[in-house]
Amino acid sequence: MSPTLVFEPDGRRVQAKKTDTVARAAQRVKISLNADCGGRGTCGKCRIIIKEQANASLVTDVEKTHLTTEELSIGYRLACQTIVHGDLVIYVPRSNSGQRRIQVGGFDRGTTINPAVAKHFVELKPPSLEDALPDFDRLVKSIGGRKRRLDSIRLSALRNLPRVLRESDWKITATAWDDEIVDVQKGDTTGSSLGLAVDIGTSKLAVLLIDLVNGSTMSVESLENPQIVHGEDVYTRMTYALEESKNVQELGRLVVGGINFIVNEFERKSGIKGRDIYEVVVVGNTTMHHLFLELPTRSLAFSPFVPAIKTGVNTKAQSLGLKVNPEANVYSFPVIAGFVGGDAVADLLTTGITEQEDLSMLIDIGTNTEIALGNRTDLLCCSCASGPAFEGYHIAHGVKAVSGAIERIRIDLSSLKAEYKTVNGVPPIGICGSGMIDVLAEMRRLGLITPDGRFSQEFKDQFQRRNGMLEYSIVPGQESATGRDIVITQKDVRELQLAKAAIYTGCQALLDEKETLATEVKTVYVAGAFGNYLNLGNAIAIGMLPPFNEERFRLVGNSAVTGARLGLVSKEMRDMAEMIAQNSRYLELGARKSFNKDFTAALNFPQTKLGNIDP
Amino acid sequence: MSPTLVFEPDGRRVQAKKTDTVARAAQRVKISLNADCGGRGTCGKCRIIIKEQANASLVTDVEKTHLTTEELSIGYRLACQTIVHGDLVIYVPRSNSGQRRIQVGGFDRGTTINPAVAKHFVELKPPSLEDALPDFDRLVKSIGGRKRRLDSIRLSALRNLPRVLRESDWKITATAWDDEIVDVQKGDTTGSSLGLAVDIGTSKLAVLLIDLVNGSTMSVESLENPQIVHGEDVYTRMTYALEESKNVQELGRLVVGGINFIVNEFERKSGIKGRDIYEVVVVGNTTMHHLFLELPTRSLAFSPFVPAIKTGVNTKAQSLGLKVNPEANVYSFPVIAGFVGGDAVADLLTTGITEQEDLSMLIDIGTNTEIALGNRTDLLCCSCASGPAFEGYHIAHGVKAVSGAIERIRIDLSSLKAEYKTVNGVPPIGICGSGMIDVLAEMRRLGLITPDGRFSQEFKDQFQRRNGMLEYSIVPGQESATGRDIVITQKDVRELQLAKAAIYTGCQALLDEKETLATEVKTVYVAGAFGNYLNLGNAIAIGMLPPFNEERFRLVGNSAVTGARLGLVSKEMRDMAEMIAQNSRYLELGARKSFNKDFTAALNFPQTKLGNIDP
Repeated sequence: MSPTLVFEPDGRRVQAKKTDTVARAAQRVKISLNADCGGRGTCGKCRIIIKEQANASLVTDVEKTHLTTEELSIGYRLACQTIVHGDLVIYVPRSNSGQRRIQVGGFDRGTTINPAVAKHFVELKPPSLEDALPDFDRLVKSIGGRKRRLDSIRLSALRNLPRVLRESDWKITATAWDDEIVDVQKGDTTGSSLGLAVDIGTSKLAVLLIDLVNGSTMSVESLENPQIVHGEDVYTRMTYALEESKNVQELGRLVVGGINFIVNEFERKSGIKGRDIYEVVVVGNTTMHHLFLELPTRSLAFSPFVPAIKTGVNTKAQSLGLKVNPEANVYSFPVIAGFVGGDAVADLLTTGITEQEDLSMLIDIGTNTEIALGNRTDLLCCSCASGPAFEGYHIAHGVKAVSGAIERIRIDLSSLKAEYKTVNGVPPIGICGSGMIDVLAEMRRLGLITPDGRFSQEFKDQFQRRNGMLEYSIVPGQESATGRDIVITQKDVRELQLAKAAIYTGCQALLDEKETLATEVKTVYVAGAFGNYLNLGNAIAIGMLPPFNEERFRLVGNSAVTGARLGLVSKEMRDMAEMIAQNSRYLELGARKSFNKDFTAALNFPQTKLGNIDP
Repeated sequence: MSPTLVFEPDGRRVQAKKTDTVARAAQRVKISLNADCGGRGTCGKCRIIIKEQANASLVTDVEKTHLTTEELSIGYRLACQTIVHGDLVIYVPRSNSGQRRIQVGGFDRGTTINPAVAKHFVELKPPSLEDALPDFDRLVKSIGGRKRRLDSIRLSALRNLPRVLRESDWKITATAWDDEIVDVQKGDTTGSSLGLAVDIGTSKLAVLLIDLVNGSTMSVESLENPQIVHGEDVYTRMTYALEESKNVQELGRLVVGGINFIVNEFERKSGIKGRDIYEVVVVGNTTMHHLFLELPTRSLAFSPFVPAIKTGVNTKAQSLGLKVNPEANVYSFPVIAGFVGGDAVADLLTTGITEQEDLSMLIDIGTNTEIALGNRTDLLCCSCASGPAFEGYHIAHGVKAVSGAIERIRIDLSSLKAEYKTVNGVPPIGICGSGMIDVLAEMRRLGLITPDGRFSQEFKDQFQRRNGMLEYSIVPGQESATGRDIVITQKDVRELQLAKAAIYTGCQALLDEKETLATEVKTVYVAGAFGNYLNLGNAIAIGMLPPFNEERFRLVGNSAVTGARLGLVSKEMRDMAEMIAQNSRYLELGARKSFNKDFTAALNFPQTKLGNIDP
């Protein structure tokens, strides 16, 4: 039997020959691996991650020149060098952010640049028999350190200090984190001080390279979360983590490996040096937070879903294996609860909800959707298990918002045929979340589906039946990149109903708890990469969101990584993040008496025709 | 040619056969290795350190059961298992403190017990859906932590916290260092909290095991400083350190290995666990301080002799490889200057000189003798290169104050024969420092040596000539343990003149700088193990010390390790140590114009007959 290759995250499958390289097999299913050298192994770009190394050829010398020992240990390979020996699950990292629409940045707020990292250039008077003050104390005196509370130095920096001072004619740059010197360098390097703002998403890592001198973003990279080899969603990974305590370590190190990969990219593309990165600020949902820090996740997995820590965690880069300056501080944002993590805190920080008098709502849509409602006197938040449907999982032709994903759909009133628009305008490969919301709203508007979600008998001529399941065709096979019809099935609609009902129920629960109406909410911030391509009218029309006034919506993109950036460049913002986490109240939806009833009611589509749907 | 074995620190030599074990060879020169098993390898007590492993048999399985990998890597062997293949220098560690008189403790002062390590036993209310506060924050709240500034936790402790809480029915003990939790344990372990006070001397390590609950000393161990394989004195080791930067590491790790050996002894004898040791406070001269922390010593070796740091250094045990709790803090005392180290700061702390109104002097006699003069408004200190003569080096029959060392000598007026007293009253093996001072004073008193240090022609019948050198016999061969005469030679007297002149010059320089007289000094504290067996009248008589009034002397023993203990049990004492180091002034003797003249003058013996010498 010929081996089966499954390419993740798309899930495309292909039967391969035992002499095929992975690159050749990928070509047959039109998976581009970005190679520049036509498979000769000189460009090193066709990186893949393989879980079952036993079913592939041994690592070649060519691969060893392109991949670090750490990358090799994680399972990185070059597709053009890897020969298929058996069944393989191949994970294709998309580090090329041009190819995948990953939203970073977007909505932002101003802040004074006041990072925890400070560089001081000083010229010291050399010691003499009359003035033999020791090196460190001479340095501190020169910086004016006692006043600045600069009173300690990391042992590694102290071990270098005597040499650096004497080899640089007593002109050095001392880098401090908080009140401690963490590095000393010859000459004046104050012009270059770098930091990373990291959002560890369940499905992707987004990393900003920040110039700590002026707070600007120098570069942006993102990468599928390498943990995906252990499952697409948080629950699968948590199950894996529960099996053995060493699995927690493995999951943590996969993420660290991913961040290191991105650092490598920054080094290659921006000409920076990893060791000039002196601080890393990390946000992520509570499970990602725990796995990153290698904290046990057992108590997150079972009621009452208690995290190990709420407060932000500071640790050293070297203790986690991050390939930045070994003494760089790694600050992990505080979390609010087991299902409301540091990413939500970062969203709140970015939007400034907790500083305003007016009532605002934040909705960060993802596999878990975090929702918060409040103002500066009180903030209530919850989390709902909206599932990965909007990210393409469990949907017949669902894909993420990659190139070729259908992101907009309109159904023509007379022909009842779908019109669509894809990411990058290339031939379609599947439907992403915003396309799904559009197709539901359009089908409902035209009566193709009933209020309870069934494909309407009235329009049965518009549907095909395949394998006993009704489906509505959006793209005929001859137009699609895959050669297959792209359709939405009755089962897809059911999946999407579960997802949208979960989000709606969460929003409404918060409104109820705060005894307020949707119309009283001044601003609704919608976060998450997904949020940028959302037809909001359609989201309300399908009953995914309560009927807020549309003009009060603010799409804030990946406000999580923006929050990480704020925490990186400003100590005051970091303090604010801690305050947000300490003062927020968490509402456990499952503990509400009316939850099941509310959720069941929300599964239906609203009966009302809304004015903001095209006539 | 048969191999030569040299046993250090005594320097005894023996020709061995190539089939001999080291233990058998040692027996022939009467070196006891403390074995209990008659060489069968079952007791593991005959530990030695060998530098040239190539000239010895390979490590046996028996040795592997008694010695740790680390000990083996340092060169530890069992003498009964090690067969001689060639010339060997064998270092015999004397960990049995009963066998060697190492002074620990002695003079002490009271202090309130307030260590930086604090244990908190708490019973937490288990979380529920209504109260899902994360574990760490729940713990901090229960300890009342915000008030106590307890606001962070080491990542390693956080990784254990969820499990420890749930496996112990939410009753745990949290151990904090300063404002950070460093360990969590099941149940109530507040009764046991341990610390180490360590004095790293050039020739020996002295370690106190301290109960941090009540401040008491539970056990005392000492060990020859394992760095001795790279030279007896500081200069030889510093030269070795300068050869290659990895030598600094090696020297540092030898000391760490020695401390680990002692921790092992505490575990074996006192039934404690190394991981219950939560803080280690270390004092030592500046070179020992630098080597322990693996700081470069180049700038200490050359004028202007500048240390890397004056301020005390905090680091984690695991970063140094100490086998105590990995998160234990290691506090290295501040130093004053290149030749006035943390041991002198500890002496000053113990004696309280800097807190008194009256003028006091401290003299810590060793290979380097540190001297300080001052009171609470000003303290001036210096260091003099007194050399290792008083410790037995470069003296024909010099030994340290080990069992059998002659520690008291009196010369009979009529017979001109020496009477002596040995440590432990056993047959004599050589003369230790206090014996040397006595014999000089007695010989001078009786005119056997002239004021300028020559053996007097007048008494030439009392001397023998051996290898062209005059010598005065103290013990005839038939009385000695070695079978050889124990004598003092003309060259020995010259060596001792250099040593005593250095100390005298230092004392007088401080008196001159402060424009004061010896009689105005209220109290003179004499520190160092040596100091406990010193006939003070004789020390003044030979012109080693200025003519202070004898009733103002206080012998304070090893006040360095006592100072380390004070810094360990009291945060206030630690702050005081930092203040002492910051506020002391250092006088560089070599920079004084009159230094050479003063030193030359001090070489002679005083002409005056002093009343406090026996008639």
